[in-house]
Amino acid sequence: MSILVVGSVALDTISTPMGRVKDALGGSATYFSLSARFFSPVSLVAVVGRDFPKSYLDIFKDKGINLEGLRVCEGKTFRWEGQYGWDFSDPQTIATHLNVFASFNPVLPPAYQNSEYVFLANIDPELQIKVLNQVFHPKLVACDTMNYWIENKPTHLLKLLKMVDIFLLNESEIRKLTSETAILKAAKKILALGPKIVVVKKGEHGILLFSGNNIFAAPAFLLDKIFDPTGAGDTFAGGFMGYLAKCKKINQLNLRKAAIYGSVMATFAVEDFSLRRLQNITIGDINKRIKEFKKFTAF
Amino acid sequence: MSILVVGSVALDTISTPMGRVKDALGGSATYFSLSARFFSPVSLVAVVGRDFPKSYLDIFKDKGINLEGLRVCEGKTFRWEGQYGWDFSDPQTIATHLNVFASFNPVLPPAYQNSEYVFLANIDPELQIKVLNQVFHPKLVACDTMNYWIENKPTHLLKLLKMVDIFLLNESEIRKLTSETAILKAAKKILALGPKIVVVKKGEHGILLFSGNNIFAAPAFLLDKIFDPTGAGDTFAGGFMGYLAKCKKINQLNLRKAAIYGSVMATFAVEDFSLRRLQNITIGDINKRIKEFKKFTAF
Repeated sequence: MSILVVGSVALDTISTPMGRVKDALGGSATYFSLSARFFSPVSLVAVVGRDFPKSYLDIFKDKGINLEGLRVCEGKTFRWEGQYGWDFSDPQTIATHLNVFASFNPVLPPAYQNSEYVFLANIDPELQIKVLNQVFHPKLVACDTMNYWIENKPTHLLKLLKMVDIFLLNESEIRKLTSETAILKAAKKILALGPKIVVVKKGEHGILLFSGNNIFAAPAFLLDKIFDPTGAGDTFAGGFMGYLAKCKKINQLNLRKAAIYGSVMATFAVEDFSLRRLQNITIGDINKRIKEFKKFTAF
Repeated sequence: MSILVVGSVALDTISTPMGRVKDALGGSATYFSLSARFFSPVSLVAVVGRDFPKSYLDIFKDKGINLEGLRVCEGKTFRWEGQYGWDFSDPQTIATHLNVFASFNPVLPPAYQNSEYVFLANIDPELQIKVLNQVFHPKLVACDTMNYWIENKPTHLLKLLKMVDIFLLNESEIRKLTSETAILKAAKKILALGPKIVVVKKGEHGILLFSGNNIFAAPAFLLDKIFDPTGAGDTFAGGFMGYLAKCKKINQLNLRKAAIYGSVMATFAVEDFSLRRLQNITIGDINKRIKEFKKFTAF
């Protein structure tokens, strides 16, 4: 089934100990789309400026992403500049230029309104709600967020949580939102707020999945080298939602498999800068790594 | 098979957000012994002062730990005082009084010299070597260490690593010792230094096990509440070595199972202060948690 994703398409300037890229293709909706497309068709809702390179548009087109919902506006594309240290954890933001993203007002093309699978990437929860309200009968809705919205738009975020099935967030976000340090307690609090499924992304430490009384924990796939962790979470979400949309049936086993697919997709995102690796892999590469994942977690 | 353990037996004063204990039973050899004893007989080598409470000695005796190698010296028992914050990571050391431990010169009772399984808990690597040299034909030797020895006794530590089969350490230690941030690269460096097996303890993020080209990753068991993380690593080591000594055959599957047993044992150590929980569990409690562990990691 087709997945609707709303989020950012951006030009990223990123420094890590492994190098630097300038105005590289980035954004939450970008990473999500190019990950999810291996499993399900993807319809994108985002905005870029007139300066958005045609070569980047071609990447989406080549991979079969539906761009009917991508608006090209007067002005410049959203730009982010960040720097990572050797631990590759939270980057230092050098600059954020919202540009056309500042007045982003997502309106769904009619064909998108029948989407069954929806991923609301990390944007203002007011906009996430606005998009969701335009979808007629969503079957499975997932959202992401960030500390900024937890601090500045808690009311809208809590309203959104009542409307979604799956909430994906990282450790610092779940702790901030719940004021709990123990992840298990924090996850139970989130489950009481609306979502039926909570996915805690722990980066190099793997993922945790909570639903009802079920808990699933998986370590991360170990990599020799990380080049650029940007987009890992959205790439995870793409594999996770893509796999679920492909399965159609949402049960515990499929949720767990989806989390493994998501984890494996994220490994391809971080092995090179921007989308360089992710855009060049095949389903064969993915399945090979899934096999390796099984091998190194079996006991 | 019986396991020989050399390490500390201490009186711990510990503050965590969950409370405080004063002069509670602690020490690396203590946690190790009371964990390993569920799987294999344990022979302890350590030193305490005349002030060491008889009630604590009785705990070891009640659990069948061989105390022939426990010296009771004139003077006071080793005392450590530490404080944990809400994240329960590295504690702040308030005070360390080595007392009788300062002149600890471990001499093995003759009956211990035929030990086949040896665990050298975190003490001066010179002493670890000294103990190991007194064992006639060790079959499997594991050691632990800490940043202090990596900084202050690197030559002795490197010498020790050539003599052991298994090296257990935590993330900050492996990074310090190898100057590598990527754990996979760091582990390969350690494997080149002597040990055939490297176990990286990641606390709430689980464990990683490296041997040859095999990698095993397991998440940690999720707990509702942590009271006191002191001794978690040594309790892990106790379950890990205890299970291996019981299996006798050291192969990849048994190593992985041993790591799961170790992880489960550690959960009992942290659920209450000192040895309060660990000393009161049954093999039934352990097996129940092993089953839960399997359930929450299957996919």
